[in-house]
Amino acid sequence: MPLMIALAQINPTVGDIQGNLELHRRILAQVGNRAELIIFPECALPGYPAQDLLFENAFLGDLQEALEILAGEVGDRWVITGTVRQEDGRLYNTAAVLHNGRIVAWRDKTLLPTYDVFDEDRYFTSADKIEPVTLTLSTGESLKAGLHICEDLWDLAYDTKVCDILAEQGVDLFINISASPFRIDRDPRRRELIVEKARRLKKPYLYCNLVGGQDELVFDGHSLVCDESGELICAGAVFEEDLIYVPFPLDTMSATAPARLAVVATPRPATTTTLTRVEELNGAIVLGIRDYFRKTDHREAVVGLSGGLDSSVTAALVVQALGCEQVIALAMPAVYSSSQSETDASMVAQNLGIRLEVLPIESLRREMQDTLEPFFQGTEPGVAEENLQARIRGTLLMAVANKRGALLLTTGNKTEVALGYATLYGDMAGTLAPIGDVSKSDVYGLARYINEREGQEVIPQAILEKIPSAELAPGQVDPFDYEVVSPLVDELVLNRATDEELIAKGYDPLLIAEIRALMVRAEYKRRQAAPCIRVTGKAFGVGRRYPIVNRYGH
Amino acid sequence: MPLMIALAQINPTVGDIQGNLELHRRILAQVGNRAELIIFPECALPGYPAQDLLFENAFLGDLQEALEILAGEVGDRWVITGTVRQEDGRLYNTAAVLHNGRIVAWRDKTLLPTYDVFDEDRYFTSADKIEPVTLTLSTGESLKAGLHICEDLWDLAYDTKVCDILAEQGVDLFINISASPFRIDRDPRRRELIVEKARRLKKPYLYCNLVGGQDELVFDGHSLVCDESGELICAGAVFEEDLIYVPFPLDTMSATAPARLAVVATPRPATTTTLTRVEELNGAIVLGIRDYFRKTDHREAVVGLSGGLDSSVTAALVVQALGCEQVIALAMPAVYSSSQSETDASMVAQNLGIRLEVLPIESLRREMQDTLEPFFQGTEPGVAEENLQARIRGTLLMAVANKRGALLLTTGNKTEVALGYATLYGDMAGTLAPIGDVSKSDVYGLARYINEREGQEVIPQAILEKIPSAELAPGQVDPFDYEVVSPLVDELVLNRATDEELIAKGYDPLLIAEIRALMVRAEYKRRQAAPCIRVTGKAFGVGRRYPIVNRYGH
Repeated sequence: MPLMIALAQINPTVGDIQGNLELHRRILAQVGNRAELIIFPECALPGYPAQDLLFENAFLGDLQEALEILAGEVGDRWVITGTVRQEDGRLYNTAAVLHNGRIVAWRDKTLLPTYDVFDEDRYFTSADKIEPVTLTLSTGESLKAGLHICEDLWDLAYDTKVCDILAEQGVDLFINISASPFRIDRDPRRRELIVEKARRLKKPYLYCNLVGGQDELVFDGHSLVCDESGELICAGAVFEEDLIYVPFPLDTMSATAPARLAVVATPRPATTTTLTRVEELNGAIVLGIRDYFRKTDHREAVVGLSGGLDSSVTAALVVQALGCEQVIALAMPAVYSSSQSETDASMVAQNLGIRLEVLPIESLRREMQDTLEPFFQGTEPGVAEENLQARIRGTLLMAVANKRGALLLTTGNKTEVALGYATLYGDMAGTLAPIGDVSKSDVYGLARYINEREGQEVIPQAILEKIPSAELAPGQVDPFDYEVVSPLVDELVLNRATDEELIAKGYDPLLIAEIRALMVRAEYKRRQAAPCIRVTGKAFGVGRRYPIVNRYGH
Repeated sequence: MPLMIALAQINPTVGDIQGNLELHRRILAQVGNRAELIIFPECALPGYPAQDLLFENAFLGDLQEALEILAGEVGDRWVITGTVRQEDGRLYNTAAVLHNGRIVAWRDKTLLPTYDVFDEDRYFTSADKIEPVTLTLSTGESLKAGLHICEDLWDLAYDTKVCDILAEQGVDLFINISASPFRIDRDPRRRELIVEKARRLKKPYLYCNLVGGQDELVFDGHSLVCDESGELICAGAVFEEDLIYVPFPLDTMSATAPARLAVVATPRPATTTTLTRVEELNGAIVLGIRDYFRKTDHREAVVGLSGGLDSSVTAALVVQALGCEQVIALAMPAVYSSSQSETDASMVAQNLGIRLEVLPIESLRREMQDTLEPFFQGTEPGVAEENLQARIRGTLLMAVANKRGALLLTTGNKTEVALGYATLYGDMAGTLAPIGDVSKSDVYGLARYINEREGQEVIPQAILEKIPSAELAPGQVDPFDYEVVSPLVDELVLNRATDEELIAKGYDPLLIAEIRALMVRAEYKRRQAAPCIRVTGKAFGVGRRYPIVNRYGH
């Protein structure tokens, strides 16, 4: 009889120890006696990343208490879950092994990512030993599990090779519990590493990943199981919770011929990398929005709908996340707004089935300028006058959000956030930036995908074709050729390309210098920007830390 | 003849490699042949912290080039300066030793702070060896220097004791180059460590610290020299640049009796810890404001002056930093503003000698509410209406700042930022928060200090005595007893006090729960707050990283 293993790809909430404990209970009840070993992701109990909450002794105490309660409820099953433990004043990111009412073992994380969005050296101490954990099963047989955590798989840049060290001690299979955040093209890389380890070390590899949104991060789930020949045999759902049963053939376990791991229950295709770039973007952003609202107890969203591309795409994504009943759109025309914009905005609202209110701001704009006469009198109109309109709109949007207990979402894309082509406290006002990590080029792609997906022109072709404009001054259009600037910004942000590399790719040296300078000067705006949902390898936000006071590249 | 050593306590700018090179040159020219060894602080060439700039190859290349240029200009003097070097794709926070046109040696930092505001594990690899550096002097004698960097002194929490390891190899003196940011009560701790090391290891200790403001951080300078008996014999200026000459008696250097280090040039008192708490706060904030403006090429500040305590104190600090000609104040009364507030605001402006413009916002407020009728109609006035007034003010303040190329400063204190008693995009709008790390209690202290310092009631007694109010609703006063809540917030933020500890100190359990919940809920506001000048051991900002989505403590 094979040992049945369940991978519980759950969606916990940071800090919600009680709620996360309930998630564990729900899975335990659902699994019942269908599986003898149940595996939860990294930090499934505290949520990930819990950040400085981990410095609060009360939090650590509550966490430990919850783990002990959970241990008391697992019965004669084996449960592995991710938590944080404290010993001698040090914190460990750890996998707790629970059985028969007790915490039987801890396996601590060895490799602590401290780059990009990760700060694990700030919190954790690296494991002081690496060894398999032995589970004695109901059949009397022993299972030696090479249990390790997330980054321990990503060992290329580290001297310590955790899986190899485990394999040297003899293991029957590898278990990796992860909280590995999504980014475009992350998934094939993950698979490659897993397949390579399974094949080279000739053992099945079970990878259980977290799912859900947490601030800027989205965890995509997509847990994977690979047999000892390196073949992917099943995968968890992408962007949603899942429970995956994997039978492990105990009888051949200690044979010299490697055991053949065969899926008997709920076989699943392991081919979800067929998701296209825009499908991935769409899925990640929708989950990020939905979880932000759900986990902060909000239901309704407010969006400024200008009739332009960015706000239209944002609105469409928010509707997917929350439903059209939960989205309120505002159009706020002023003197420089075209009638086409209003038409386009109302078309989008109609296509999405959301409420649109038109609040004209022209008289407010004039009144503001009158009030500012002591300072504006005799000056040339410029950025102050333009920002004024954006900030009146931001103020109105926030007022509606405040009045209704809703959340305002910003609509800026990554390219314009990079360039600082946005008004702080104006169009940058909002709680979350759904497309803040999506380049202008990808916003076009998303729009086309959304239309295709819905089988109708949700976002009218006119919006896709018109020249982008903030409409804050007479005859204004965005001063960038996005077909050139959008990929250039990506080169600078994602690849940290040097001038030489960019010139070799055909970019104009003057343009490079101009864009670099704009990016440096906009740092102060980004420091006050709403968190954006991270979908690329380098988003503005917690994973990119630049000084504001910075004379380099000016 | 003693060896003359110069400690150059300079104020570099992050990313300004050329400008920082010029600072080095200026010192080298000033010192001439008065000193044979000239010491600059940690990261004096790139500035500190250069953050993700260090991931740009072009930046690292320019840095190396500047260092080589500098080496070419030191002549037969020995120069030690702080920079970052790359080797085999790894970065080291390093002290470069320059002599006769060459980079003679590197001494890398061993202990890499990765806590609070520090992220050094993100960037740097720890030194792979710890050894003294030997300088051959013009007299033919050799000086063995125990050269190390900042945190290498703060070894209590680390297993590696850098100074001890250096001492075991025999050194004539210790040299520490630092970029140690200011916080209240940091200085006595620094001294204690230095004195202990000098006394126990029986060698003179030279500590050269950076000075100046960089984003949230202020470096206070106050370089120190301690003789081999542990006696502090001189100190650099606090909060300003300085050049300190220290003669080192070579003739007794290798004698068994420890050499007596005697100051001959520009003797300075080593007693600057007589600075009071408010003097320290005042000095750090003024330097922080001044450098933020200078290093971002701004001259003029805009401040909203409500007639309340916080904005009055902020305005007084800004005037100290920039001069009264460079400060513009706006009072923006609405229907709930008291006439007393306007009187108080104009009194403060008059006392400070700054321009005050009164821009009434009542008709804007009404017009906004009318525009919002589709959403406001039939609802009870509440937080939406209150925020509206704050955001109209924020919009006007930003318009004036934009129009004049000035920077808007926020006036919120740490206690209210903690509690979320502030309006995002309203009174929270601004580039820098001078008193954002100053508790309400300390704001009172600062006000009294400022009055005492100026020998007149710059901030009228009436302001110090009235009950704090945001004046956004009829009869409104701040819903906190700051005498209780201000220290309670400090306990929670600075000491991470548990409920048990707080109850033992006499705090009401219900109040504790309420304040904790307010703090958690305000995280999303703080994420978009202006950077505050960090003056305590735990400021909101880069050194305190809490999740927004967080159900703990709600």
